[in-house]
Amino acid sequence: MPVVSVTANVPESRYDIHIAHGLLASCSPLFAPYKGRRAAVVADSNTAPLYSYTLLEQLHRAGVEASVVILPAGEETKCAEQLSQLYDAFLNAHLTRADLVIALGGGVVGDITGYAACTYLRGVHFVQVPTTLLAQVDSSVGGKVAINHPRGKNLLGAFYQPELVLVDCDTLKTLDARQVGAGLGEVIKYGCIYDRALFERLESLSTRERLMPVLDEVIARCCAIKAEYVRLDPHDHGVRMQLNFGHTLAHALENAMGYGTLLHGEAVSIGMVAAARWGETLGVTPKGTAERIRAVLEGYELMTEVPAGLSAQALAATMALDKKAEGSTVRTVLLTEIGQCTGVPLTPDQLKAML
Amino acid sequence: MPVVSVTANVPESRYDIHIAHGLLASCSPLFAPYKGRRAAVVADSNTAPLYSYTLLEQLHRAGVEASVVILPAGEETKCAEQLSQLYDAFLNAHLTRADLVIALGGGVVGDITGYAACTYLRGVHFVQVPTTLLAQVDSSVGGKVAINHPRGKNLLGAFYQPELVLVDCDTLKTLDARQVGAGLGEVIKYGCIYDRALFERLESLSTRERLMPVLDEVIARCCAIKAEYVRLDPHDHGVRMQLNFGHTLAHALENAMGYGTLLHGEAVSIGMVAAARWGETLGVTPKGTAERIRAVLEGYELMTEVPAGLSAQALAATMALDKKAEGSTVRTVLLTEIGQCTGVPLTPDQLKAML
Repeated sequence: MPVVSVTANVPESRYDIHIAHGLLASCSPLFAPYKGRRAAVVADSNTAPLYSYTLLEQLHRAGVEASVVILPAGEETKCAEQLSQLYDAFLNAHLTRADLVIALGGGVVGDITGYAACTYLRGVHFVQVPTTLLAQVDSSVGGKVAINHPRGKNLLGAFYQPELVLVDCDTLKTLDARQVGAGLGEVIKYGCIYDRALFERLESLSTRERLMPVLDEVIARCCAIKAEYVRLDPHDHGVRMQLNFGHTLAHALENAMGYGTLLHGEAVSIGMVAAARWGETLGVTPKGTAERIRAVLEGYELMTEVPAGLSAQALAATMALDKKAEGSTVRTVLLTEIGQCTGVPLTPDQLKAML
Repeated sequence: MPVVSVTANVPESRYDIHIAHGLLASCSPLFAPYKGRRAAVVADSNTAPLYSYTLLEQLHRAGVEASVVILPAGEETKCAEQLSQLYDAFLNAHLTRADLVIALGGGVVGDITGYAACTYLRGVHFVQVPTTLLAQVDSSVGGKVAINHPRGKNLLGAFYQPELVLVDCDTLKTLDARQVGAGLGEVIKYGCIYDRALFERLESLSTRERLMPVLDEVIARCCAIKAEYVRLDPHDHGVRMQLNFGHTLAHALENAMGYGTLLHGEAVSIGMVAAARWGETLGVTPKGTAERIRAVLEGYELMTEVPAGLSAQALAATMALDKKAEGSTVRTVLLTEIGQCTGVPLTPDQLKAML
């Protein structure tokens, strides 16, 4: 089994991301450092039946006494009530600071589980096993953990790095087409903001079908890019905000349509085309860039336009409340070319006018 | 106004602790770095009427637009519901990641406010203005933030360093005698675990009345000791656990009697005498140490015995759930002499037998 390993080397920690086909069924050696500890595996109602038995067996082989906590599937799970359920489950399992919490699932499971791992007893050991493409290339690397608040997505959160990330590419075989698309939106984003060669490779492959055979290499490249951003800016005070390309509108769309209506990567896809157009309007982004990005996204079967019926005024108001807002402007990532970007402060009025 | 400054130099941050009489009424220059930002001052129903106007005026002078959030006074405030109230207040005040949260009060206000500052938008700027002796010498330095859970004190928390700590010794003039005593318990603790000279100075001064004129120097010494522990062990995985001398029994007492019945420092006072006796029983602590500590604590009018009517069995069971528990033993700090200590794993049965 060929394993691609990427090392995330951030100031406060250093951890390995292992990427391979069939990794879940052969990961027991990677848990050797936790021999004799307890583990709580947090999964959701989709991932638990598919993967939890395989993971429990590997943990058992490694001498880790594990139990499974199952959360409802869906974005609504990232809430204070489910967080409280996780704390109760950890207490019931008598988890101490020496023990381990494992997130087995997509971004929702990773975010809420990481937040719980960070805050339970002021922090327990934490491992990510992302099972969606979006989580594999984005949310499982970098230590951002969070839950939603009725007034905004990810308003409550912290920075908490995992000690180990395991990516089994085979989990994508059970992932539905929309979920794969959501991940592809973020994959294309890395090309847009950081890696022209990656963008052009995706442009040339042009369809999901042709991409699939080389997806493991592409995932590894995305993890390496993400890890580099995290290394440069672990607490998201500088260059890491480039990762928010497309997110200004994406967060507002998710908020306006109700969390979970659009998948995060779908919202980012729409947001990237919008941000490229804003950049063209403001003279920051070369003409034709938005159209080129739109064509790649459509080739991979992604949405690229704001759904009909949403009010520009409401979206602009929500964007002004966004956590990247500083004072009275909203710092928005715009492309200077494919593979390069910069942060530009935009006023709510500018955003509204361009929607 | 003589200002004693102690610099806390911990791996992930570096911040100053300013200690002076009358500091609250003259602190505006220290807020110059936050000019143009918004601030939420979190106080409780005791501290808000006493100090919030003075602090608001200083913030106004520094060009910081501040508002006050008032929590109910008391340990019960360190709960999920009040935390949710704080998040709502921050959202209502439109606080962004560029803005500032200030804790004005004792340990309860500092702990819950710091936890909110850490988790709101993944962390906003945080300043501590401790107004009780206990908070001044202990909880305001070191970045431990937390709320309680129905099943245990500080079970939910994180590590989040303040950027600035302001200690106005004059706030102790309005503090009731029990609260002063609670702080003195921790002051004496620093002598026991780290600084024989401090212990002997306190032993020689022998009463609150004789200590008061030199309390500012003593506070500064305690902050310096605390900061040194934090520097050596920011995440409480090693030597910092020495600060838990007396805490094994103290947490169990607070839990068994209901949070807030005993003040934390009062519980620690009882816990220190107990831990010294355990150390003598186990041959770790020289004979006569417990009696010497008991005499000093009584000189400063502190409780030193477990209140009648509490079951040793129930206390032992609660201690076994303590977050310092590792596997089946509870790591407990014992003195090897006055000014020196070590961590020793004790079984629940040992603890119960010695109670």
